[in-house]
Amino acid sequence: MGRRSLLLLLLVFLTHGAATPVPPALRALSNLHMSTSFKYRPTVALEYSIHYIQQKVDHFGFNTDKTFKQRYLIADKHWKKDGGSILFYTGNEGDIIWFCNNTGFMWDVAEELKAMLVFAEHRYYGESLPFGSNSFKDSKHLNFLTSEQALADFAKLIKYLKRTIPGAKNQPVIALGGSYGGMLAAWFRMKYPHIVVGALASSAPIWQFENIVPCGVFMKAVTTDFRKSGPNCSESIHRSWDAISRLAKKGTGLRWLSEALHLCTPLTNSQDVQHLKDWISETWVNLAMVDYPYESNFLQPLPAWPIKVVCQYLKNPSVSDSLLLQNIFQALNVYYNYSGQVRCLNISETATSSLGAQGWSYQACTEMVMPFCSNGIDDMFEPRSWNLKDYSDECFKLWGVRPRPSWITTMYGGKNISSHTNIIFSNGELDPWSGGGVTKNITDTLVAIVIPDGAHHLDLRANNAFDPTSVLLARSLEVRYMKQWIKDFYASLGKKH
Amino acid sequence: MGRRSLLLLLLVFLTHGAATPVPPALRALSNLHMSTSFKYRPTVALEYSIHYIQQKVDHFGFNTDKTFKQRYLIADKHWKKDGGSILFYTGNEGDIIWFCNNTGFMWDVAEELKAMLVFAEHRYYGESLPFGSNSFKDSKHLNFLTSEQALADFAKLIKYLKRTIPGAKNQPVIALGGSYGGMLAAWFRMKYPHIVVGALASSAPIWQFENIVPCGVFMKAVTTDFRKSGPNCSESIHRSWDAISRLAKKGTGLRWLSEALHLCTPLTNSQDVQHLKDWISETWVNLAMVDYPYESNFLQPLPAWPIKVVCQYLKNPSVSDSLLLQNIFQALNVYYNYSGQVRCLNISETATSSLGAQGWSYQACTEMVMPFCSNGIDDMFEPRSWNLKDYSDECFKLWGVRPRPSWITTMYGGKNISSHTNIIFSNGELDPWSGGGVTKNITDTLVAIVIPDGAHHLDLRANNAFDPTSVLLARSLEVRYMKQWIKDFYASLGKKH
Repeated sequence: MGRRSLLLLLLVFLTHGAATPVPPALRALSNLHMSTSFKYRPTVALEYSIHYIQQKVDHFGFNTDKTFKQRYLIADKHWKKDGGSILFYTGNEGDIIWFCNNTGFMWDVAEELKAMLVFAEHRYYGESLPFGSNSFKDSKHLNFLTSEQALADFAKLIKYLKRTIPGAKNQPVIALGGSYGGMLAAWFRMKYPHIVVGALASSAPIWQFENIVPCGVFMKAVTTDFRKSGPNCSESIHRSWDAISRLAKKGTGLRWLSEALHLCTPLTNSQDVQHLKDWISETWVNLAMVDYPYESNFLQPLPAWPIKVVCQYLKNPSVSDSLLLQNIFQALNVYYNYSGQVRCLNISETATSSLGAQGWSYQACTEMVMPFCSNGIDDMFEPRSWNLKDYSDECFKLWGVRPRPSWITTMYGGKNISSHTNIIFSNGELDPWSGGGVTKNITDTLVAIVIPDGAHHLDLRANNAFDPTSVLLARSLEVRYMKQWIKDFYASLGKKH
Repeated sequence: MGRRSLLLLLLVFLTHGAATPVPPALRALSNLHMSTSFKYRPTVALEYSIHYIQQKVDHFGFNTDKTFKQRYLIADKHWKKDGGSILFYTGNEGDIIWFCNNTGFMWDVAEELKAMLVFAEHRYYGESLPFGSNSFKDSKHLNFLTSEQALADFAKLIKYLKRTIPGAKNQPVIALGGSYGGMLAAWFRMKYPHIVVGALASSAPIWQFENIVPCGVFMKAVTTDFRKSGPNCSESIHRSWDAISRLAKKGTGLRWLSEALHLCTPLTNSQDVQHLKDWISETWVNLAMVDYPYESNFLQPLPAWPIKVVCQYLKNPSVSDSLLLQNIFQALNVYYNYSGQVRCLNISETATSSLGAQGWSYQACTEMVMPFCSNGIDDMFEPRSWNLKDYSDECFKLWGVRPRPSWITTMYGGKNISSHTNIIFSNGELDPWSGGGVTKNITDTLVAIVIPDGAHHLDLRANNAFDPTSVLLARSLEVRYMKQWIKDFYASLGKKH
């Protein structure tokens, strides 16, 4: 196991980054998508105001008193001072406006919960840069990019809002987030239960750390998605790796592969071939995350149930290597060229902007150490073991820091979280991240909701005419819990007076 | 309000520091005391082993991977691998050996709870210095002296012990501490409930922050102790301040005062007079903290119920200024010269070593911002208001840092802690710190124990033949709760298997 496989693992993180972050590029696509490719349009126009709060760069040390501007959005159209609530989005690794636009659930339930919506940007993402353009310069400037600092930002922001917005003081606040943001929502409730009465943690892989779950669960889940989406689909992909290797070894193999896959830059050596495989793997992973039941544009513009579309090209694994690779190209084309406008495929391209990816890459190299592996037996990928030493060395090269793989479980409890209350963990069964999520009730108030037809935090997306029943049920259950927390809050408030 | 009154406030902190810290000087006294002046001797000899663990200097940032040696003590004479428990002392602002010697309660209950005793030293105190002799050099080196870092040290230490001591892994850990260490014990359970099943927080003023309690409660409680300990006692002290001022204004007043009070260094100006008053105030405060029912030596060697002894000299407030001050001297002499060996009183002397005091002074200037005030009406002291600006300026001069007075409540919840479980808050009614403590049950599992005849964390001290019934009852209740937590832990463990 050398650099390459580590690279893949990092790519997986980046993919995860991409699944949520800010990308200016993506934002453009997203706008495009909002105006042209949605079949279902949200009934509410997203109207919010943009604000900034001065936050300490370091909440946990006093040597510096430096501050920076954290951005947050407020939407209070449906907010009621009397009996209302505050829904607080715990921003994750990206531009908060992009999240705001992709979290329709909060907008859809605002009226029913008489809720003010607040979307808080995570430090080091979007515009909330502690040191401006120097924020990613070196490990010294990156030193304040941790989940603990982000949670402290959220806590201080909520206290500030309660102090300054008339009517907000005695209202219950609920944390909501998806993916890494879902972990933050859960951890926020665990660490600051005096500030939020509960949390909805959607697709939050809080157990994808150390050896809490087997490192193979993620790639296995991706494989299951493909296996279920068409006959022989995962088997075709499984066979494709050796086919690529065999083709690459032939005299004109690299040229043939480059042409068959319509690559923008031809492959020239074996390193390029490995890079190609990593890039293809990442594509299948991304597809598993965004396997939504309707046309959407989260990472790329895609058709409804994109894996089913992909699998239509991968029905026959027993063809020749060259035919198999031609089919693989057709499948990749679904992901990279749904618009039909793309002339060649760029294997250096990721869906993320460098900014969001930079931040997440650093976080993955410090706190967010998630072991991944594949064995080619339980999954359709080439075997890759998890090697912490290589990973750590790579992180040191990239950022000058070394990961602390057991810190997150020391801080946030790992599996031993039963003393906490009022957290909903929702997971889509199609989502590869569900393998590291909480999918069974822990107590009466630490509950799991599983959405069989859901991909990555589908429940946080806006209502859609093509939503499967399972996500509608999940959302209504989520609302019921939130209403209960709000009711409990007002009841206890009443007792105090 | 200028520097002077601020100085007093700092002195109060230092006193608090003194109430617990390491002082090499005090340590010597303490040993002396153990060998000569105890009327009641503990039945168990204190046998422990000394250990060190490498801790990250910064748990919350990755720019530095530096480590330091944290000291901890282990006593496992009564520990049982089968059905036992681990009692973990959350070290506070001082040398851990001194705390170990002053926390007899843990030794007294070890056998009944089949407990291993662990005493963990707080970073920046005793031998646990992150940067050795440079630890207090400047705000850069002091940057890692926070309660959050200390709690993270404790968490990592417990995980390490469970990993490395055969038989410790599946045992319940209970946090115990007094004073600041009591706050740490409570906060440890709040923030790391996956690591400790419960906490005994003795004399922990977790509400002595911001405006949760009136700033005057502390000095009012000191006054009550003196009022109850002898007729006209507090009134005599109340009158003494003006008497000092009047005497100081006379031609030979400073000389007279210096001689009457047997001061080692004569008073020479009005600044010295203010210093004298601050030092006398601090003496009364210290007495209130250590008003124990038996001969003891916590801050100084003292008789049983020392305030009663002091008050024998302060029965008549209506005497002349000079007679009143001669009486005050007799009273001070009880505190400073119980041994009868002291030739003069040194108003520059505090009971603390510079080390422990340094650390606490920094903590009081950063996180541990406890507002104190007096009004001379509800208390026996001269009026002093709480002035955050002056306080902050003084801190900046001393340490180059500014306090963040609302941080602790943001972090640890202030009054809003009802969602936590399994914390006992014990407070002695004689202890001035009880004013900022939890003295009423919050829930079934967040309980308060009030000890009417108790001073500062009397319940944590060793059993003594002169213990009042109230502290015996408190201790047996504490043991009952701890046994319940242990039982619950094993019950839940059983369910998992």
